[in-house]
Amino acid sequence: MPSEQPHPPVLMLVPGAYDAQAAEPHLLADADAPQLRVTDFVATRGDGVFETIGVFDGTPVNVGPHLARLVRSADRIDLPAPDLAVLEAALQATIDAHPPVEELTVRLSLTRGVEGSGEPSCWYHARTADDYAPQRAGIDVITLDRGVPSTVNETSPWLLAGAKTLSYAVNMAAFREAHRRGAQDVLFVSGDGYALEGPTSTLLVRRGGRFSTTPASAGVLPGTSVASVFEALRSEGYEVAEELMTPADVAGSDGAWLLSSSRLAAPITTLDGHALPVDAELTGRFEQVLRGRG
Amino acid sequence: MPSEQPHPPVLMLVPGAYDAQAAEPHLLADADAPQLRVTDFVATRGDGVFETIGVFDGTPVNVGPHLARLVRSADRIDLPAPDLAVLEAALQATIDAHPPVEELTVRLSLTRGVEGSGEPSCWYHARTADDYAPQRAGIDVITLDRGVPSTVNETSPWLLAGAKTLSYAVNMAAFREAHRRGAQDVLFVSGDGYALEGPTSTLLVRRGGRFSTTPASAGVLPGTSVASVFEALRSEGYEVAEELMTPADVAGSDGAWLLSSSRLAAPITTLDGHALPVDAELTGRFEQVLRGRG
Repeated sequence: MPSEQPHPPVLMLVPGAYDAQAAEPHLLADADAPQLRVTDFVATRGDGVFETIGVFDGTPVNVGPHLARLVRSADRIDLPAPDLAVLEAALQATIDAHPPVEELTVRLSLTRGVEGSGEPSCWYHARTADDYAPQRAGIDVITLDRGVPSTVNETSPWLLAGAKTLSYAVNMAAFREAHRRGAQDVLFVSGDGYALEGPTSTLLVRRGGRFSTTPASAGVLPGTSVASVFEALRSEGYEVAEELMTPADVAGSDGAWLLSSSRLAAPITTLDGHALPVDAELTGRFEQVLRGRG
Repeated sequence: MPSEQPHPPVLMLVPGAYDAQAAEPHLLADADAPQLRVTDFVATRGDGVFETIGVFDGTPVNVGPHLARLVRSADRIDLPAPDLAVLEAALQATIDAHPPVEELTVRLSLTRGVEGSGEPSCWYHARTADDYAPQRAGIDVITLDRGVPSTVNETSPWLLAGAKTLSYAVNMAAFREAHRRGAQDVLFVSGDGYALEGPTSTLLVRRGGRFSTTPASAGVLPGTSVASVFEALRSEGYEVAEELMTPADVAGSDGAWLLSSSRLAAPITTLDGHALPVDAELTGRFEQVLRGRG
């Protein structure tokens, strides 16, 4: 549910994404008028990739990793790499164009562009973040079978597992299924029985002094947030690992979180109705790390 | 590859899709200006459904089955049913607004609409059909594993198998993989080894006097074209069946086709390099049926 939005969103088109010499590499769009053509492949095929970047007190977090992942996702769908300097400048202009707020959510989209044009479309969309306070205190999560095995990236790379595409209808359907069952989020499970990721988040699990996440090789999106949290944990002497876990491993753990760039660290309160320990102090430390204050 | 387009496309917005009393239930959009907002859920999540309707010498084919399937797809993603009388009138207006051509491809899109508006977006997009003559003579097809088992609709309805959603990035990636391998199309195979469907087409297989297609229960889109062809075959005394087949069944058959509303009946010349018999006369009869002249 979006919270009340005190400010209109900022929409920044980035025609310079593939042409740094463009007269205007980035330019503000009128948020009250259409910006896209229905013949853009994003509207006809969901054919594009995106990133969501959290901006806290005006400072974007993990920009480098987000842009690097965008390039990897683009490569997976055979789009060339955009000009990262142009994207960085456009991001700053997007943030500057929005009134200062504590938490801003900025979405970067890159699509295959209008049919026949051969030119990708690129834009930023910034809006005041939703009120995530309740979910940062804890979320009820259900597991849903994603059908494909954890070996999908080896066997079927054309399924684009691990690419952050704009074809997210299934991810949205999974959220609706969770809401129907009285939960707030989903932990996808592979066809061969392993815990994978949330529809828009990465799994983090604590077992004693060891923190684990799903390996990217299992067909999940490599999380920018979990990389930051792992770095902080490692520096404190904890053991961190990418390893396959079952839902039973998660349910029997000493705590689990779904991490993302805007909601940050949401502790799993229950998994399929099974209560998990919640460590508010540790969650708060993760949140500081993910706000770029780690 | 789109062919040269002698006429500009026709874009018809349908604000009356959920409000038959709208001042203008449908209206022509300027094809040279943006029509969509980047905050439409189709642009942020590929969250919508569509149909492609073939129009031959000005007459749309299988309008009722296409609209019925749109309603089913919409229901699968929890969108209410649009007003079918408004959609039918808007379709006719779209066809009338395009100069007469032998083959017109009309796409109907229905999305979850702009974030926060709660109002779905709906439009038609008509364009002169691609030149399908080469593919109607025969296509080289490769099989690609879709990962999920043929029981997916029972076990994981949230995966939206069998709903024609606008999240088609994987379908487009499959076509690119086929082109990389020197083929023109793909036959998806289930994780448990059954032939399913093409990325934008339905499988039809002949074995002696029996014609078969994949059952919708296997998680494929129920084809409007195969329903027409089955009706014609049945009236000629052939046996028709919905039944699971393996790729070996298809490769060893007496002929196989990928059917769709615009390309019509494309005979499979080779499947993974294995040659199949091609019956040009029978293919021509299917084509007549699918042009509405059966």
